Amino acid sequence: MSSEPDLHLARPDAHAPGMPLVTVIGDGQLARMMQQSGIELGLTVRLLAGSGAASAAQATADVWLGEYTDEDVVRAVSAGADAVTFDHEHVPNAFLEGLIADGVNVQPQPSALINAQDKLVMRKKMREIGAPVPPFAEILSVADAEGFWDATAGAVCLKARRGGYDGKGVWFPSSRSETAELVAELLDRDVPLMAEKKVTLVRELSAMVARTPSGEIASWPVVESVQADGICYLAVAPAPAATGGQAHAVAKAHTLARDVAEELGVTGVLAVELFETVDEAGEPEIIVNELAMRPHNTGHWTQDGCVTSQFEQHLRAVLDRPLGSTALTSTTTVMANVLGDADADPEQAMSARMDEVWRRFPTAKIHLYGKDWRPRRKIGHVNMSLPCGAAATDENVAALRRDAQLASDYLVTATWKDQ
Amino acid sequence: MSSEPDLHLARPDAHAPGMPLVTVIGDGQLARMMQQSGIELGLTVRLLAGSGAASAAQATADVWLGEYTDEDVVRAVSAGADAVTFDHEHVPNAFLEGLIADGVNVQPQPSALINAQDKLVMRKKMREIGAPVPPFAEILSVADAEGFWDATAGAVCLKARRGGYDGKGVWFPSSRSETAELVAELLDRDVPLMAEKKVTLVRELSAMVARTPSGEIASWPVVESVQADGICYLAVAPAPAATGGQAHAVAKAHTLARDVAEELGVTGVLAVELFETVDEAGEPEIIVNELAMRPHNTGHWTQDGCVTSQFEQHLRAVLDRPLGSTALTSTTTVMANVLGDADADPEQAMSARMDEVWRRFPTAKIHLYGKDWRPRRKIGHVNMSLPCGAAATDENVAALRRDAQLASDYLVTATWKDQ
Repeated sequence: MSSEPDLHLARPDAHAPGMPLVTVIGDGQLARMMQQSGIELGLTVRLLAGSGAASAAQATADVWLGEYTDEDVVRAVSAGADAVTFDHEHVPNAFLEGLIADGVNVQPQPSALINAQDKLVMRKKMREIGAPVPPFAEILSVADAEGFWDATAGAVCLKARRGGYDGKGVWFPSSRSETAELVAELLDRDVPLMAEKKVTLVRELSAMVARTPSGEIASWPVVESVQADGICYLAVAPAPAATGGQAHAVAKAHTLARDVAEELGVTGVLAVELFETVDEAGEPEIIVNELAMRPHNTGHWTQDGCVTSQFEQHLRAVLDRPLGSTALTSTTTVMANVLGDADADPEQAMSARMDEVWRRFPTAKIHLYGKDWRPRRKIGHVNMSLPCGAAATDENVAALRRDAQLASDYLVTATWKDQ
Repeated sequence: MSSEPDLHLARPDAHAPGMPLVTVIGDGQLARMMQQSGIELGLTVRLLAGSGAASAAQATADVWLGEYTDEDVVRAVSAGADAVTFDHEHVPNAFLEGLIADGVNVQPQPSALINAQDKLVMRKKMREIGAPVPPFAEILSVADAEGFWDATAGAVCLKARRGGYDGKGVWFPSSRSETAELVAELLDRDVPLMAEKKVTLVRELSAMVARTPSGEIASWPVVESVQADGICYLAVAPAPAATGGQAHAVAKAHTLARDVAEELGVTGVLAVELFETVDEAGEPEIIVNELAMRPHNTGHWTQDGCVTSQFEQHLRAVLDRPLGSTALTSTTTVMANVLGDADADPEQAMSARMDEVWRRFPTAKIHLYGKDWRPRRKIGHVNMSLPCGAAATDENVAALRRDAQLASDYLVTATWKDQ
């Protein structure tokens, strides 16, 4: 195992004189889009990447090659940075504690990050600060699982405490015996488990804020995140709130994200993913599902629908600089994920597919990540906004959702789904 | 003289699989901002740069080092590109003709570019296509200059045919004898000269379009370019047109830019810089001043005030791909250039100056170029837009101009000019 990064792509000459240096650990599309903002702000993003061909590495001048699971590598790439941040939550916290002990400015800090890494720790913390979570329990044995089944009358959602995403690491067993078998098998594979009470999902919301180490907070409007098979495919910003109950739920989510950021000491961008469900009186209520402490898929709309994008805001926040306006530049923006087709990549070249989309939708903002096809892989997204000055109506928001979805579908199928 | 580029910064691994490759010759802020758009579109920008520390080289993964005045270097960096384009007009046309003969897709082509390189050629072409230019003449001798002085009753503006910018290469001699002396001296230094009749300048306008090799054209609204000492310091988009006469002048400028793009076969972004003057009846009229065939300073507002920025549009246009919507995202956007202070760079670090600006103006979009201070050097710009839904009024546009100017002044003086 190497313990020094490979510096053959490093570019010390690429640092703007006198400007901050941010080390970003992670080489995916989130780091790639941070780099776009770094260029704009004149600061330097130094990247720790697994490969020079990785999404963010394609877009970055100063790339250090190495593994974030190697403490020496993480230490080397962090040296001299004004801030160290991440595009994922997987850097071992012990490394980060070590960096902090050495005086490195790591943002967000592991004391906050743990809540984005471990679903059980997060739910305990949410309960402690009064944030809404469904009944949950740690599952250390088959007996624990059976007990939870009985206590919830079979409304069991079983989750891996760590590492799940996009629908992975979540199970809905359909009987007490299936629950017992599944838990036995997972515990046998050393998967740390928790269970929570299944809720009646009306829709998913995402409430995002940015917070600086000094405590400044800026919130974006709450968005609706439309999901299928555990993967977000549309985000609608702001979340429609047609009824008083929905408006109340959205307002609660908005406040909650600020509270979570403050109570947990989050720095940088925080996404609070929420379920909107119904209470016993039939009124909308919200429940915390996940936390992410970095730019988030449900915030990509901010690139084209908001004064300050989540990527710029994240860089400003981790450097403890004043946050930008989160005012909307359009009354509604819809983001549609470009998800690799399940079966195959179409023969038509991606460039030609983009051209077709642009011919039909000249306002479509296509963002690609430099990734090739894999089934269901996030390879880009499309943002579309209502025209300047247009008020949002049920009709034009529905049309915007349809158009953004048609555009993103075309990009992965080379087919117009409405024709 | 080297005849191979230095490839030690080249990054063939940084090419997104299957996506277009655009070679950009030039390493300034225009190439830097093209790179931001290239990242978004998932295509690869390969840069020919003079130095790895140059503005665009800081922001680009695949940098080839070499001189654009070296034909072998230009040929090498162009090989295999889907399009070759520029961030300046100084690549010798003979090189470009050679590339084209070899089958390289150079955009814009030298037959159009010559009009952005040679002011006399451009004016002849403008006259030929019926575009408004003041009386002008080629100046090959002192006698030519004296004749022009007599013919215009002393209203002489003398210009170097090539290489002038930001007020350089333009002279306003105040007497017949001064004209003769100046021309003698310049001709002695082999400066190719022309003269045109001095006009009464009311204000400067800039009309920008993009055009593809297939002939698709997209226009942005005409902007007012506010200048001092020959350098643009503010651009107001769209140009205010309070009177019917002004509205007429602006509409004429808008149409003219399309006509020029078509008649000259321009591809990529074209900026037509215009003087608004008054005719004999006292009504506004327009006169072509300069052409630029690349993204232009007066189009920087498009990054934050328009669906498709000039940088994205330029890449799309040179690749002959469908053009994006040029619809406004705000009723008015003001761009203020950040021009290095004439005397000295303030002690306060640039980051701290940005923070001060953001504290006062959370909607200010600061764009920096990774350049250090030199007197009057363009080191960045600030875009500020009216809020979503706000109609433009004399009052709020005046406030926007003031705020953008205050912000850009602070960035180079560390002083609020209104305090």
